[in-house]
Amino acid sequence: MLTVAGSAGPEMSVPDLRKDPITGRWVIVASDRALRPSDFTRQHVIPAPATKLCPFCAGHESRTPPEVLAYRNSGAPNEPGWHVRVVPNKFPALRVEGEIQRRGEGLYDRMTGIGAHEIIVETPDHAASLATLPARHVADVFFAIRDRILDLRRDMRLRYILLFKNHGVAAGATIEHPHSQLIALPVVPKRVQEELDGAHRYFQFRERCVFCDILEQELQDHRRVVLETNHFAVIAPFASRFPFEVWVMPRRHDSHFERLDASGIQDLGHVLTEVLQRMDRALEHAPYNAILHTAPVQDGPMTHFHWHIEIMPKLTKVAGFEWGSGFYLNPTPPEDAAKFLRELVL
Amino acid sequence: MLTVAGSAGPEMSVPDLRKDPITGRWVIVASDRALRPSDFTRQHVIPAPATKLCPFCAGHESRTPPEVLAYRNSGAPNEPGWHVRVVPNKFPALRVEGEIQRRGEGLYDRMTGIGAHEIIVETPDHAASLATLPARHVADVFFAIRDRILDLRRDMRLRYILLFKNHGVAAGATIEHPHSQLIALPVVPKRVQEELDGAHRYFQFRERCVFCDILEQELQDHRRVVLETNHFAVIAPFASRFPFEVWVMPRRHDSHFERLDASGIQDLGHVLTEVLQRMDRALEHAPYNAILHTAPVQDGPMTHFHWHIEIMPKLTKVAGFEWGSGFYLNPTPPEDAAKFLRELVL
Repeated sequence: MLTVAGSAGPEMSVPDLRKDPITGRWVIVASDRALRPSDFTRQHVIPAPATKLCPFCAGHESRTPPEVLAYRNSGAPNEPGWHVRVVPNKFPALRVEGEIQRRGEGLYDRMTGIGAHEIIVETPDHAASLATLPARHVADVFFAIRDRILDLRRDMRLRYILLFKNHGVAAGATIEHPHSQLIALPVVPKRVQEELDGAHRYFQFRERCVFCDILEQELQDHRRVVLETNHFAVIAPFASRFPFEVWVMPRRHDSHFERLDASGIQDLGHVLTEVLQRMDRALEHAPYNAILHTAPVQDGPMTHFHWHIEIMPKLTKVAGFEWGSGFYLNPTPPEDAAKFLRELVL
Repeated sequence: MLTVAGSAGPEMSVPDLRKDPITGRWVIVASDRALRPSDFTRQHVIPAPATKLCPFCAGHESRTPPEVLAYRNSGAPNEPGWHVRVVPNKFPALRVEGEIQRRGEGLYDRMTGIGAHEIIVETPDHAASLATLPARHVADVFFAIRDRILDLRRDMRLRYILLFKNHGVAAGATIEHPHSQLIALPVVPKRVQEELDGAHRYFQFRERCVFCDILEQELQDHRRVVLETNHFAVIAPFASRFPFEVWVMPRRHDSHFERLDASGIQDLGHVLTEVLQRMDRALEHAPYNAILHTAPVQDGPMTHFHWHIEIMPKLTKVAGFEWGSGFYLNPTPPEDAAKFLRELVL
């Protein structure tokens, strides 16, 4: 958000432009009009009671297509008793049936796409969230995601698997019940390729992974660290595009999320629960988008790319212009955001 | 917006993936769940009466920094009598004073940035809009923009001038009074560079401007044309990211907006007024973002780049995920959007 204001305000010091070392994008961090959590107006994501129509609540299994995976303590498939359940989207953006056909139309290119679009229902409890569920339950959500990736990548036509979560209406959620989405694509999305290319350029120059270098510098410097565990570090990135943007990064190098072992996934459950609790508390249940950044599924392990999760709270009013131009103005320095989140007493 | 739905719905045919010929991004156009204008829930941008606090209304000139340009029929500088007025932003993202200093911080790069941040107040009338102002007045807004670019580009430190408009709160506007913003930057933003690079690759391959090729194909095909005049064509682009996205393209090749001559600017006033009237009518005064795509100001004319204006209505609920991943799902085929806008009787 670029503020246009006519009333008197504080004097501004020299603007701070910062460059993201992976993609090369510049961000203006307006440190002297630094906004604290209380300065933002935002929607609060407080769940309403479940309705009889919610397709993701326990007992409503017939309202979705048959499940492709469920972790359950009891019950038959498509009956209650599950605690994590994965179903195809009833209105998928892409479908598995059919063939990829590429064709031109004058100077344009089009493709009849194949793919998959699935919903990870994170809990049968309509009013829960990843911040309120037990860490072990959140780990199970990641076990389910890993299982689905390992299954879908056997289809060699699928080049990339996109995993994301829209939390709250302002972040694009259309159903309130806690869920994430998985889209398997026959192409690698542009921003993903850009990140892979940027990391590759850094590797060619330094012969080191840029994310490993970031981790080392951040853990030493500590100003932008939100929390750290055996397997993970959560940081507010140096060139944060958004106030209170945080990245969850595995400390051990790996390009593919699906290669994470069970102890790593258990720890990820803990880390994610804690960072979301801190964000919920600091930002009064703000909406957010979370995206899993991982390498293309058909590619082997990469020395230059490092999987991680990016969490972007929606605090500022629309970033239509920023996202369209690739030019960001962030009113909260990541050092302030990290300190605030880190020092919060839960 | 990716819809997640549990209730019964129509069968979907084969998904249509389309590639943008300039940047190479793929978009899923879900043509069989095509949304018509009435299917969207949106905010309607209906101006409230002007308040005494509005810094951009006539008579309130002292509430802004002194004007850097005004077209006026009467009055002294910073007094009423103007019809277009340009002022520095009171809370600028960048400032002209100071020096560009680049420095490293471990693996990171930062810059103490210089630049300019100005507001183009498009009319003294709080309740007007670019769709309701006379075409000649809208042309004056573009004359003012051209004048500001020609002035600012004399500062050789400024590499790119970003011109954009947020119309309506949902599109990020913080002040209702009709205005556009100008940000002059010491770097070329990432998305701009990406577009320049993409257009350059096409030129290397074909020895023709990709935008000129698009214009030729679109004007012949006609399905995605919204309107055309002597100097301009308005099209719904083949790989539209958003429902009812339109591009205003000059028919004669030029890389730099500021090289447009007076007759071109007069025609641009007409074209923009008409396309915004059609959009206001079709989309019930939807919010929108508009961005001027033009070449870096210090570069000479380019054979491979073609300036244009991109207008993106905000109809779908947040595109946080899409913008973050570079993967778009558009529920309205551009052929349908263009037909709707074209056939509307004003």
